[in-house]
Amino acid sequence: MRRRQFLAAIGAGTAAGAIAKPAVAQSMPEIKWRLTSSFPKSLDIMYGASDTLSKFVAEATDDQFQIQPFAAGEITPGMQAIEAVSNNTVEMCHTVANYFVGKDPTFALFGGAPFGLNARQQDAWLRDREGLKLLNEFAKKFELYALVGGNTGTQMGGWFRKEIKEVADLNGLKFRVGAWAGRIVQRLGGMPQQTSGGDIYSALEKSAIDAAEWVGPYDDEKLALYKVAKYYYYPGWEGGTALHFFINRTKWAELPKNYQIIVAAAAAHVSANVQAKYDARNPEALRRLIAAGTQLRPFTQPVMEAAYKASNEVNGETSAANADFKKIYESLTTFRNEQYLWWQIADYTFDNFMIRNRPHG
Amino acid sequence: MRRRQFLAAIGAGTAAGAIAKPAVAQSMPEIKWRLTSSFPKSLDIMYGASDTLSKFVAEATDDQFQIQPFAAGEITPGMQAIEAVSNNTVEMCHTVANYFVGKDPTFALFGGAPFGLNARQQDAWLRDREGLKLLNEFAKKFELYALVGGNTGTQMGGWFRKEIKEVADLNGLKFRVGAWAGRIVQRLGGMPQQTSGGDIYSALEKSAIDAAEWVGPYDDEKLALYKVAKYYYYPGWEGGTALHFFINRTKWAELPKNYQIIVAAAAAHVSANVQAKYDARNPEALRRLIAAGTQLRPFTQPVMEAAYKASNEVNGETSAANADFKKIYESLTTFRNEQYLWWQIADYTFDNFMIRNRPHG
Repeated sequence: MRRRQFLAAIGAGTAAGAIAKPAVAQSMPEIKWRLTSSFPKSLDIMYGASDTLSKFVAEATDDQFQIQPFAAGEITPGMQAIEAVSNNTVEMCHTVANYFVGKDPTFALFGGAPFGLNARQQDAWLRDREGLKLLNEFAKKFELYALVGGNTGTQMGGWFRKEIKEVADLNGLKFRVGAWAGRIVQRLGGMPQQTSGGDIYSALEKSAIDAAEWVGPYDDEKLALYKVAKYYYYPGWEGGTALHFFINRTKWAELPKNYQIIVAAAAAHVSANVQAKYDARNPEALRRLIAAGTQLRPFTQPVMEAAYKASNEVNGETSAANADFKKIYESLTTFRNEQYLWWQIADYTFDNFMIRNRPHG
Repeated sequence: MRRRQFLAAIGAGTAAGAIAKPAVAQSMPEIKWRLTSSFPKSLDIMYGASDTLSKFVAEATDDQFQIQPFAAGEITPGMQAIEAVSNNTVEMCHTVANYFVGKDPTFALFGGAPFGLNARQQDAWLRDREGLKLLNEFAKKFELYALVGGNTGTQMGGWFRKEIKEVADLNGLKFRVGAWAGRIVQRLGGMPQQTSGGDIYSALEKSAIDAAEWVGPYDDEKLALYKVAKYYYYPGWEGGTALHFFINRTKWAELPKNYQIIVAAAAAHVSANVQAKYDARNPEALRRLIAAGTQLRPFTQPVMEAAYKASNEVNGETSAANADFKKIYESLTTFRNEQYLWWQIADYTFDNFMIRNRPHG
């Protein structure tokens, strides 16, 4: 029996009015929200974040606060999730902020941006420094409030039909890549393509595109890209791609404080799970991809350096034209430079030792 | 007004019995717990985990579930926190499971164990694989239920008064180090010492010990060890030291489901914050330590290899004598070997590039 029904059944509604405001009734109102995910159910880790958040919030509030998750396309196209929240068509979404760079390039900085922070560093900037505060100040312009909603870790660089040995090999290359990284590709002579996830396989098969970046082994395997592009390059140019929950700002402000806390804590739980799942499942997927004939290739140092230089140019020009971007980008890069001073000492050195000593099998 | 008082005021207690069980009254009971931390308030990140958990749970339950945190020594000595929970003297604690290896060496595996998993990998093993499930099955023997409560990332190897160039330099060295790593030190010819945090400085100053391992730059700076030991070695031998909340199993089972969910989500929030704080604050502390004259030194490859070999021997012998340890250690190391297959591809390569290209400043 729902609390409200129960209170009605015992006539508490009237009695309460007569004596005092019932603290718990106030703090446990029945609320129903909709959450649109930018991801199809087939991307089970990313879509699963919304499902898990929903279950956690329902269980923590004894089903009083119900957030119903919808997969991409069910009520809103995946790429328009943020817009739907900004417009208050739905109360919240789970997405990659990069999808919204057309509105304002500052959205690229939610997810880390190319050659920015690795996953843990990004979390440190968002949670212990000014990262999330700055991004949320900016997000006010769009009536949005953001909570961290996971990270993929460093992604792969993408699937290529031909080897990329030098920067010139990118010339004229039709490369399916995220909107922001597309600006780097363009500056390197490539032709960035926007192809939806479900169309990448056939585009590669028909040679409509020459290369495609998606996520990493676990998600890429599902698209079967290894069947139509042999070379799997690494690393991706983002140290870690963060996902976020965006909530309509007015709706967020209307929530009782205890529900806000529960949603925030549930988002932290979901974030940890998303990263844990990618980390746990990528190695096995990578093994299967290699067994199926995938050829792993590192981007060469000149290619990485050219991409880094192009990225700095794009960011410099964007900073000159956009004060929000400039302010947040400077915070992010100052933090990044300091971070790698430390990262190279303990974490990196430990990993280096373990990689060198890894049993071969 | 508390819900219970409110229900009493309106006579709901009697009425409810007459019609149906009140769902919300059941799920929002007033509960008070005590949480003993193994850390003093001066270790603000570690102690702060308990403070934050307590606030989150109170706010999420409209103050109905109150968990009062106590610093080490206030109600229980820091090293005895787990025992106090196991005995049901307090309902929960926040600690390093390593402190309890005297009871059973299997507790060493909660925190990662030397040459085990790095921080993200450990989270993946705990959350997406059998890690936390196996550990909690084991913990039943001690009436304990564990939730992840943060990670420090890879720690530093410690402060040394003299340089350690080869394994022979460890011979006879009085080295303050955690109980489990002490077994490695002993096997390398050293003399592991158990010195409480507050006594390390004077022990080094009086040459009662020759070296001391603590945490990393942010925490170590507070002990001012750089004044009494010049050489700061890296990396630590654990890829990341996980902290945990241990809860008395009976008390956990007695909690309403929604309170369990809220505590679990709050622990995830706390975990993310602990790692974020260490990551954000270690670089600045490292800079200050270097400015104060600290000499950074990497453990040489032969020293690392000897420690790895000794660690494998210790774990092998412990496995032979302890079935719980054997089962969980095998799960952990199988996972670790698979993890580094993937880690070396994307995350490590990205970090490597960023470290090489880090602006010097």
